[in-house]
Amino acid sequence: MRCLSHSYYMNMALELAKKASYLVLPNPRVGCVIVKNGTIIGKGYHQKYGEKHAEVLAIEDAIKNGYSLKNATMYVSLEPCSHFGKQPPCTEAIIKSGIKKVVVATRDPNPIVNGKGIQILKQHGIEVVEGVLQKEAEIVNKEFFKYMKTGIPYIAIKVAQSIDGKIATPSNKRFLFNTDDENVFVHSLRQKYMATLVSVNTVISDNPILNARYGQIVRQPIRVVLDTKLRIPLECNIVKTSDEYSTYIVCSENVNDTQKIDLLSQRGIKIIYAKSSEDGHLELSDAFSKLAQQKIISVLVEGGSMLNFSLLKKRIADYWYSLIFNVFIGGENTKGVVGKEGFEEFFPKLVNTKVTTSKNSTIIEGDISYV
Amino acid sequence: MRCLSHSYYMNMALELAKKASYLVLPNPRVGCVIVKNGTIIGKGYHQKYGEKHAEVLAIEDAIKNGYSLKNATMYVSLEPCSHFGKQPPCTEAIIKSGIKKVVVATRDPNPIVNGKGIQILKQHGIEVVEGVLQKEAEIVNKEFFKYMKTGIPYIAIKVAQSIDGKIATPSNKRFLFNTDDENVFVHSLRQKYMATLVSVNTVISDNPILNARYGQIVRQPIRVVLDTKLRIPLECNIVKTSDEYSTYIVCSENVNDTQKIDLLSQRGIKIIYAKSSEDGHLELSDAFSKLAQQKIISVLVEGGSMLNFSLLKKRIADYWYSLIFNVFIGGENTKGVVGKEGFEEFFPKLVNTKVTTSKNSTIIEGDISYV
Repeated sequence: MRCLSHSYYMNMALELAKKASYLVLPNPRVGCVIVKNGTIIGKGYHQKYGEKHAEVLAIEDAIKNGYSLKNATMYVSLEPCSHFGKQPPCTEAIIKSGIKKVVVATRDPNPIVNGKGIQILKQHGIEVVEGVLQKEAEIVNKEFFKYMKTGIPYIAIKVAQSIDGKIATPSNKRFLFNTDDENVFVHSLRQKYMATLVSVNTVISDNPILNARYGQIVRQPIRVVLDTKLRIPLECNIVKTSDEYSTYIVCSENVNDTQKIDLLSQRGIKIIYAKSSEDGHLELSDAFSKLAQQKIISVLVEGGSMLNFSLLKKRIADYWYSLIFNVFIGGENTKGVVGKEGFEEFFPKLVNTKVTTSKNSTIIEGDISYV
Repeated sequence: MRCLSHSYYMNMALELAKKASYLVLPNPRVGCVIVKNGTIIGKGYHQKYGEKHAEVLAIEDAIKNGYSLKNATMYVSLEPCSHFGKQPPCTEAIIKSGIKKVVVATRDPNPIVNGKGIQILKQHGIEVVEGVLQKEAEIVNKEFFKYMKTGIPYIAIKVAQSIDGKIATPSNKRFLFNTDDENVFVHSLRQKYMATLVSVNTVISDNPILNARYGQIVRQPIRVVLDTKLRIPLECNIVKTSDEYSTYIVCSENVNDTQKIDLLSQRGIKIIYAKSSEDGHLELSDAFSKLAQQKIISVLVEGGSMLNFSLLKKRIADYWYSLIFNVFIGGENTKGVVGKEGFEEFFPKLVNTKVTTSKNSTIIEGDISYV
């Protein structure tokens, strides 16, 4: 009998978790490995929202392989759920199976699970080991953890810019940066995050559709427009395609244009109300917290320089993608990536950066750090 | 007897040329291989300005190795010189040696050589083959070729910027980007180019020394200040260190402050006069052409956003280095990499890009293309 360490098998469970595609959203990505007498007898990972969880798939895999689960050990990258959701609780399946030990990387930050899954397993005489590769497991689901812990979606910002940091021409005309390679990248990002978000200014100036349409299409993002005064034109592409793609508009609580609200609602658009400040801007923390209440765990912001600045200033943006195109635009007053007053004393940073190059551009991405 | 192609040996000569360090400046980098009966009997490359050329070193190498050069073939990456400079003409040594064939990658663009070296060899009954790996050979000495062909130095621009393209803080304070890795890179660049150039505004605001002082130091660049009205402060670091490092100031032909000119000249600073426009700026083409007349074949510009824009606008900048630091500065009015009015219709591009990453930054560099 080989005796490999807990972290060896947990790492295998994490690698399985990473196989999960964006189809699991808004669920976390979970992988599971079952080991008996040093042999891996079953494996599984959660594949699609609403379908079977990793633990159940691994148990079924072991049974299909002709193994008894009696006295087996399960390695799972997230605490098993203990409640009825779209699926029956995993704890029930584990208890029934005869598994005698469960090794868990990290507790589920979801308050309706958090610790309860582990408690139930223990109450049924199952040994539970916690905290194996905990940090790694939290990183695999960093979007989900931020959302659950703060009540605000994980916020990623994507910009397409010139080498000199400009996002439009000096006369504020749209600069068509993207070529095939970059389109595939951007439209893959739109699928990776639950929602894609712009301000109404971008809707008015660029009239985007904001769906995913280049490369492999696995899912469509929810489209969110921040629109304090409900200025969105009824004839814009986003409204015109609202029967095809989920669309949310976040406006001020003070908006009372019931006719427009009705018209937009009839088109299937969900209107969400958030606090606004006296200067006529939405309070971003409230707007994003309202989106979190809609189970939007992660957002890709494709906004302009003002929104980018505000998200950095409020310190609620988590991740950054700069698609830097090999071109110069220049101009003292040309709109840049990060606008408004900028940072004078304290400067947000990018850490854990990853750099990808293609013929026409370089992508720099990383975690935004405020320390 | 092996019979390898001309391009095989020429490639070897080019690889030798690339071994040459910045010490050859303002000479081109040249490599030479001598072959007899399929055996390489001698190799050499020009190593330092004023010292022996590649051809002579290769001939000496063959003799040292005990070979007769009679009926040998020489592969040289640049046409042999035919004039007395710091060294006697290479053609003379080749003719004396008994070599019967010379394969040349490209003619020397220097008008005092151009074609004459080849002509002299032929007149002495030596067979000459031209144009083997010509393009590759011109790229190895692209600075020298631009300088010789246009009468203007090869111009590279280096900027240190935030991800969002800013080069200072919103209140125009200097942002200290560089860390050890980047300092070594920048100070290596200063050695690679004949001169390092800034505008007097940078001297006044940043008070740099502009020497090479990080990493391995092989040579010091000439320091050039563009200073239309001769506003340079006498107590600045550049003036204070002008006895240690070559220093040139380019000012307008209209400057008649003889007292200041005398003071600066006494400090060993060379004053160069160039045309200026009515708006009080130097005419850049004339300023750079005057620098070329001083045998400055290549310049590294470490200027500000205005100078960068003007060099791109005039289409005389050849190469670009962006040191992009993993930090956000932002601000609508913060000084960016490329200033003034910017480009609205036509956009300069970067091609043949090379991307290098380190912990705190990403370097994007490449040839500037105006097509």
